Amino acid sequence: MSDQNFADRLLEAIEHKRSHVVVGLDPDLALLPPSVKGEFWPERSEDASREEVAACYRRFLSRLIEGLHEDIVAVKPQIAYFEALGSPGYALYEDIVSLARSAGLLVIADVKRADIGSTAEAYAHAHLDLVGADAVTVNPYLGTDGVEPFAARARTGGKGVFVLVKTSNPSSGEIQDAHLAAGPTVYEHVADLVNAWGEGTAGRRGYRSVGAVVGGTYPGQGAELRRRMPGAPLLVPGYGAQGAKAADVARMFDAAGTGAVVNSARAILYAYRKREGDWLDAAIAETREMKLALWEATGRG
Amino acid sequence: MSDQNFADRLLEAIEHKRSHVVVGLDPDLALLPPSVKGEFWPERSEDASREEVAACYRRFLSRLIEGLHEDIVAVKPQIAYFEALGSPGYALYEDIVSLARSAGLLVIADVKRADIGSTAEAYAHAHLDLVGADAVTVNPYLGTDGVEPFAARARTGGKGVFVLVKTSNPSSGEIQDAHLAAGPTVYEHVADLVNAWGEGTAGRRGYRSVGAVVGGTYPGQGAELRRRMPGAPLLVPGYGAQGAKAADVARMFDAAGTGAVVNSARAILYAYRKREGDWLDAAIAETREMKLALWEATGRG
Repeated sequence: MSDQNFADRLLEAIEHKRSHVVVGLDPDLALLPPSVKGEFWPERSEDASREEVAACYRRFLSRLIEGLHEDIVAVKPQIAYFEALGSPGYALYEDIVSLARSAGLLVIADVKRADIGSTAEAYAHAHLDLVGADAVTVNPYLGTDGVEPFAARARTGGKGVFVLVKTSNPSSGEIQDAHLAAGPTVYEHVADLVNAWGEGTAGRRGYRSVGAVVGGTYPGQGAELRRRMPGAPLLVPGYGAQGAKAADVARMFDAAGTGAVVNSARAILYAYRKREGDWLDAAIAETREMKLALWEATGRG
Repeated sequence: MSDQNFADRLLEAIEHKRSHVVVGLDPDLALLPPSVKGEFWPERSEDASREEVAACYRRFLSRLIEGLHEDIVAVKPQIAYFEALGSPGYALYEDIVSLARSAGLLVIADVKRADIGSTAEAYAHAHLDLVGADAVTVNPYLGTDGVEPFAARARTGGKGVFVLVKTSNPSSGEIQDAHLAAGPTVYEHVADLVNAWGEGTAGRRGYRSVGAVVGGTYPGQGAELRRRMPGAPLLVPGYGAQGAKAADVARMFDAAGTGAVVNSARAILYAYRKREGDWLDAAIAETREMKLALWEATGRG
């Protein structure tokens, strides 16, 4: 049921699949397995058109989704890598969202959009209504106006929103860690806004459908944010290629071992670079290792 | 020369056209002139496909660009309204950027993107290299990592960046106006970052190619930000439909009456709703009125 509360759907998927894993879909031609590229370009891929590259990405991502869908709760298409192919890439983004939903996966569109109210409404329509993602990431810098059209679809419509609170990148502290005169840091202030924006979006399990992005690369701040936003599902990027480990993200789960999902992209998509055998087998093995490590980190091994 | 310094190109366009006007391209089927819609759907437009709507927007926007190009320095396509049509809308966005550049206009793609470094690089490639916009808007919340791939193209490559500093919407103060313990507000702190990000991007006239978005709806803060970022070109939204007047934005120009451009979208695109006659004549009349009001506000009437 796509109009069921998003937080409920997310928590049910975690329990059903015994997994907290989200796979980030960041297709990058330079990193694609040589065997996949070889099907399209037996010789060289340098002169490939955008349409050809999109077709190659489609084959790669559809096999990946087919191979991983039982072990993961969601995929997180990173739209920047689709926009980097222009309109054929945007069409592929639409296609991949449908394909993942048909495979029973939740789709968190990593779009990090935000704008003035009327424009935020156009973005919410584009990604949640038209493309049909289950949830999106949004940027809080414009305040309530930039988030409300997304939150409205979380209150009614079964959609989810993950607001950037503390991002995983090295320079995230420049603005987010600044201390306010009133006491908290900027990211703590944003966490308080997330609590306000989530009102009216709670599901049967107490979690709300307005959650937060909290980088796994900042475990201390993550643990603190888990306490500060008890009703917010957390989307935790930074696992794998960016360096976060299961022990780092363990404190972002609640006492019941749920309430957070963890994203890994390049370490799974391009696992063939570090593992023997077929690229898809390598991706599956990497995913299962992450799945187990997280399940054990929540004390449920 | 598209690899000439962006700030120089912007200031030259202001002088050459005696105009500070940027027209926001926010196509919205519900607001389109009935005569334009009538060419596509003599009866009703409710069942129109996304491709048909994109074709209608294309005709509307190409006529608008043809009619206005002598009176304006730039267009600012708001990508949310193109994404709201899905992939046919994205293809139209690409098309309109080319079309506007061919008409001799600068194109500021209002995309408000920002992400971790590798992803920000994909966005910068998508919008500045591939689509070929002259400049983009970016969100500062992720700090330097999210801005650097755009700033790199300003240092070499002749591109421009406008960082959201103080946005025009009603709730912009929730985060942006918060006072930091160290003294300034969040938006003043971001303004200081804009000064740092702009190093190495100055053109012959002293302005840099990393500028700032400062809402015309907050004239006092705008005047203060003009002083705080003396080398940053300002992109001032909020004129027209959002309520800012020429007197409000006057203080965002420098002593020479330059260094800022002012955006209006709905008030120009849909001027036919308030003016007699053909929709394009109404848009031209509205634009020329704004152009004159701003020129006079800089003391050069």
